[in-house]
Amino acid sequence: MSSEFGKNIKLSIFGESHGEAIGCVIDGLPSGIMLNMDEIYKDMARRAPGRDKSSTPRLEKDEPHILSGVLDYVTTGAPLAMIIENTNTKSGDYKDLMTVPRPSHSDYPAYVKYNGKNDIRGGGHFSGRLTAPLVFAGAVAKQILKTKGITIGAHIAKIGNVCDAVFDKNNISKALLEKLSSEPFSTISASAQEKMRTVIECARLEQDSVGGIIECAAVGLPVGIGANMFSTVEGHLASILFGVPAVKGVEFGAGFDFANMTGSQANDAYCIKNGRVALKTNHNGGVLGGMTSGAPLVLNVVIKPTPSISKPQKSVNLQKMEEETLIIKGRHDPCIVARAVPVIEAAVAFGLLDIMM
Amino acid sequence: MSSEFGKNIKLSIFGESHGEAIGCVIDGLPSGIMLNMDEIYKDMARRAPGRDKSSTPRLEKDEPHILSGVLDYVTTGAPLAMIIENTNTKSGDYKDLMTVPRPSHSDYPAYVKYNGKNDIRGGGHFSGRLTAPLVFAGAVAKQILKTKGITIGAHIAKIGNVCDAVFDKNNISKALLEKLSSEPFSTISASAQEKMRTVIECARLEQDSVGGIIECAAVGLPVGIGANMFSTVEGHLASILFGVPAVKGVEFGAGFDFANMTGSQANDAYCIKNGRVALKTNHNGGVLGGMTSGAPLVLNVVIKPTPSISKPQKSVNLQKMEEETLIIKGRHDPCIVARAVPVIEAAVAFGLLDIMM
Amino acid sequence: MSSEFGKNIKLSIFGESHGEAIGCVIDGLPSGIMLNMDEIYKDMARRAPGRDKSSTPRLEKDEPHILSGVLDYVTTGAPLAMIIENTNTKSGDYKDLMTVPRPSHSDYPAYVKYNGKNDIRGGGHFSGRLTAPLVFAGAVAKQILKTKGITIGAHIAKIGNVCDAVFDKNNISKALLEKLSSEPFSTISASAQEKMRTVIECARLEQDSVGGIIECAAVGLPVGIGANMFSTVEGHLASILFGVPAVKGVEFGAGFDFANMTGSQANDAYCIKNGRVALKTNHNGGVLGGMTSGAPLVLNVVIKPTPSISKPQKSVNLQKMEEETLIIKGRHDPCIVARAVPVIEAAVAFGLLDIMM
Amino acid sequence: MSSEFGKNIKLSIFGESHGEAIGCVIDGLPSGIMLNMDEIYKDMARRAPGRDKSSTPRLEKDEPHILSGVLDYVTTGAPLAMIIENTNTKSGDYKDLMTVPRPSHSDYPAYVKYNGKNDIRGGGHFSGRLTAPLVFAGAVAKQILKTKGITIGAHIAKIGNVCDAVFDKNNISKALLEKLSSEPFSTISASAQEKMRTVIECARLEQDSVGGIIECAAVGLPVGIGANMFSTVEGHLASILFGVPAVKGVEFGAGFDFANMTGSQANDAYCIKNGRVALKTNHNGGVLGGMTSGAPLVLNVVIKPTPSISKPQKSVNLQKMEEETLIIKGRHDPCIVARAVPVIEAAVAFGLLDIMM
Repeated sequence: MSSEFGKNIKLSIFGESHGEAIGCVIDGLPSGIMLNMDEIYKDMARRAPGRDKSSTPRLEKDEPHILSGVLDYVTTGAPLAMIIENTNTKSGDYKDLMTVPRPSHSDYPAYVKYNGKNDIRGGGHFSGRLTAPLVFAGAVAKQILKTKGITIGAHIAKIGNVCDAVFDKNNISKALLEKLSSEPFSTISASAQEKMRTVIECARLEQDSVGGIIECAAVGLPVGIGANMFSTVEGHLASILFGVPAVKGVEFGAGFDFANMTGSQANDAYCIKNGRVALKTNHNGGVLGGMTSGAPLVLNVVIKPTPSISKPQKSVNLQKMEEETLIIKGRHDPCIVARAVPVIEAAVAFGLLDIMM
Repeated sequence: MSSEFGKNIKLSIFGESHGEAIGCVIDGLPSGIMLNMDEIYKDMARRAPGRDKSSTPRLEKDEPHILSGVLDYVTTGAPLAMIIENTNTKSGDYKDLMTVPRPSHSDYPAYVKYNGKNDIRGGGHFSGRLTAPLVFAGAVAKQILKTKGITIGAHIAKIGNVCDAVFDKNNISKALLEKLSSEPFSTISASAQEKMRTVIECARLEQDSVGGIIECAAVGLPVGIGANMFSTVEGHLASILFGVPAVKGVEFGAGFDFANMTGSQANDAYCIKNGRVALKTNHNGGVLGGMTSGAPLVLNVVIKPTPSISKPQKSVNLQKMEEETLIIKGRHDPCIVARAVPVIEAAVAFGLLDIMM
Repeated sequence: MSSEFGKNIKLSIFGESHGEAIGCVIDGLPSGIMLNMDEIYKDMARRAPGRDKSSTPRLEKDEPHILSGVLDYVTTGAPLAMIIENTNTKSGDYKDLMTVPRPSHSDYPAYVKYNGKNDIRGGGHFSGRLTAPLVFAGAVAKQILKTKGITIGAHIAKIGNVCDAVFDKNNISKALLEKLSSEPFSTISASAQEKMRTVIECARLEQDSVGGIIECAAVGLPVGIGANMFSTVEGHLASILFGVPAVKGVEFGAGFDFANMTGSQANDAYCIKNGRVALKTNHNGGVLGGMTSGAPLVLNVVIKPTPSISKPQKSVNLQKMEEETLIIKGRHDPCIVARAVPVIEAAVAFGLLDIMM
Repeated sequence: MSSEFGKNIKLSIFGESHGEAIGCVIDGLPSGIMLNMDEIYKDMARRAPGRDKSSTPRLEKDEPHILSGVLDYVTTGAPLAMIIENTNTKSGDYKDLMTVPRPSHSDYPAYVKYNGKNDIRGGGHFSGRLTAPLVFAGAVAKQILKTKGITIGAHIAKIGNVCDAVFDKNNISKALLEKLSSEPFSTISASAQEKMRTVIECARLEQDSVGGIIECAAVGLPVGIGANMFSTVEGHLASILFGVPAVKGVEFGAGFDFANMTGSQANDAYCIKNGRVALKTNHNGGVLGGMTSGAPLVLNVVIKPTPSISKPQKSVNLQKMEEETLIIKGRHDPCIVARAVPVIEAAVAFGLLDIMM
């Protein structure tokens, strides 16, 4: 079992959500990069619950504490280790989970795989809280990519039946991405945001939850990053994106909508613009044959509805081998999509940096 | 650049489509497995063009020639090397591609990346023909998985506006998958197949192309294969699936349809069936927290329309830096989805075997 | 740059010796292993300076603090993160090293590689102190190997002109290895130990240092661990052993002494002993064709003399580009060989466990 | 089991010595390198038996046949696949080996590991013949390193009791290395060569064998290649060197001789030479803290005596579980050290290129 990602820059994440601390080690960063800690804290705050009005006030203090690899805010090239101490823990909420698995969580397979000894408190090593170190690593990656002229940003494309405006895939401004990646509830359209909040509130009142779709883009990428076959940009990003809890699908460009097109509709023709090669459309989402084409990288991920709901659910008692009704106590977010946006940005940033190093 | 996949079993693919030979090396197979060569040839035939009436008669002899790692049809545990000699080559068809990139192909990024020295004949190392070694490796993997009680099969879920019947995600029979994985044009419904062929024929007549969606399933998987974070079944399979040319999206279970559900609708409850833990529904497509849940593994991939169409397209002359109209001569398949089905099965088989070893 | 080792179990080490903390993450341990913390502390104490009478009283508190991956002293299967806080730091001793490199240390190449920004305090990330996390990881590995009937131990074979008794390569008792691996100054012969201490004391008085040879063995290994070519036991162990600072040579069995033998002298013949296949001699040190043979694994490493000596040495001022005499202030161990013994055991233990998982 | 090496450039070797073909795939080469095929053939000829008067006339035609990755002798950046067809095979010589293991060969552990199904003909996948693809890959690597100003060469330092002159570790000329790496029996001193041939001939007459030591050097390396801990130059080279059959020890610089030195004797002081930083001595063999220091890289490996000798040896019959005398028929080289020289050069070249890419 590996909680490790990366070919050129290795990211290793550790910790149980209700253990002593969580954190990560990033090994392979270049030396000499000045880190802006405020920007890193901002991204981590966007991820934490309780910051935004729609999310549950289950305060997590996500203060990253750097142990190595940085001197006077400049990377040294040695491994960067970071920990976040767990302060907001109440073991009691999770007492029954050892034997009565929560539907759509990892509980049951983990129980079988680890023979009952998995640290199940708060989902143990499988908790969403472990996305905090990923956001940290992605925030560092974003700063390095910025020095190379690359900007990444994402927004909530859809929650329930409410759709945001989407990117013009062939024309995304750096400024728009910067704006989106600074907001706690990231949408292009303000009215869509209001409607989404309403949908979320309704779900909360019904003791239920909703999921959604996140659209993420990167501009400023040089042409020819990545390679074909097993080194595609899509494959590399997908392998880290599917590591984000609740992600159940990843598509690039037109994605599953390609099934509704013909070749003449789907193909992105070439032209000359400002003396340079450019694409007339960007259905391919910025990737051709696994390599960046120079057009914006555009992808969507789907986030399944938060599995933890207060409504009673049918489960089984693994020790008695009998069916049992389960009510998950504790505090549940009816929708984690807004908090997942910086996580998706982080995953894309780290994945791109790894390919580029 | 890496044409290599796998953590426990390494698959390394090589070859240019119009070079002397293509092939692969599979390193890490267990010893003592009896290989059924006929089954392997059958899968490779499903992939080759010209076998099925809807595909272009561009005959490729896909006879795999094993050089090592097998003795009397039994694996020895040493690396298994296989080559397929290229016999059906006509270099001339691809003469202009060095300087006038085909839209939606890898030509342009490859030109930039490899400084004009990439072996561009027939798409060079980026050709769809390189899926032949992948199908070979997947066929070997399928046979090993069979000895562990696991069966894999896929079908065309959609071409154009024609949809096939889909799997009942929570109840897929081994027999159905075996039947599907033996057919050159793999659908559940015979009437859907007819309609799909019509759509394809229309595209051919219009000098255009169409794409589609492939649905793939695996049954018999034990519970707890895979792990969370960067070792998820989804991430591992996605990283090999996105290596298949033309794949632009991968989703598991309900996939992007999760965005339309609430938690109470999406969650898969547990029950006891025949004295064992079972799931009442399978929106999660057989994977929870990155690990197999015991329910069938179900996924979809989208195949973009074949980029090579005979219609004139707008491109640029990279040497003169002028816009130029491009007509791609040669023989084009208006739809490669049927041929991609065994490739998707192979990718899933190899990915699963790698996780399980 | 990677401070990471392992194929099946990943060990990632981080930290600067005079930074806030050092530590490691071990990812891939099996779940359900009960850890004996006292044994782990003992091994770490053998490594730390100041514990043994011959070593310099530069006290390092090596108290490992486990942050994750263990619950009630039992491994959960999730990544095990451990930190050791640095308490005994005096930055001042290392002030000049940024510009006047110490001979035989990493200073100069690190300066060139990291452009002057490397965290050079106490050798930064290159310090011997980073062997503490390795000893921790090796101690965990030793306990897991014990459950599989495998015992590892090492002793000082040589310091200066004083040689210890050596192992009978074909007959090493578990009890001897257990005894050796519990001692701070590990020798087979008590009289050799006394003479070695004298050599070390003389070096101290002369403001100089000495190195030595460590012989390490493992018994109880099953036959057939490892493989040929790039998966040899020798190659895998050497790649972790050469990561221990000051190791400049690794040999297995008769090692460089093979150059003095003929084939008939060197070959290890087979016989039957107690109804089982056994080797009559063990010049090969327990490894044949990269795989364990069932005979004890036996290897030697050479530790070069501690580079930090108080005698004046010739160096250069990298900023002025002038020659300069350097006197390294601070507290120096005239011989680190005794402290390196648990590090060599740890490296061998971890390397073997990685191959076996 | 992995016959694969490399982090940035992957080398995958396959084939059984008496199977249809052996070969390799090299994945990750830069594009645009013009290959000099004559130089590659020369290196491969130095490895093959029967070319030099001291080695047994067991002719192997080592003609490499490139299948992909090269166009008009220029690398394309795509994987380079190469095969050598096996023409000189006489299966019969190896008939008994399935049940009566040859001492000091891999037969016994391989039998246990692979359950009797290993392809044992000629040592199957464990044969020395598999060094031919390694020499090919190393020859390609040497040419790429040459374009970066780096030259590699090796010589036989010792056979039996005959020692060659050794390198002046701090002053090795490019011309000397080029000369040594072009000779089939590579020594610095002509008289030493004669005496070595005599020792070998005596061994042949006595139906015995001898081993030896090979000293290898690389000049022109930039400062700062490699890193500490698990990315050391020593560790990386050792992990490929120990993959060469018969290598049982690897040491850098003074190696095991460090045990006889004090720190003031062993340390390499710095000075200014021609306006640049230089080392006054080079006991460290060109590596400090795992990184190149700018001084020549110098290492020794020991080759154990060829295990296959004609003298009768004691073994066991694995099926009857009885002791049995074994006489290995066939043609045996009394000494493979001269043929191993290009293999050692190849391993060092490939390992260095992998670190540098």
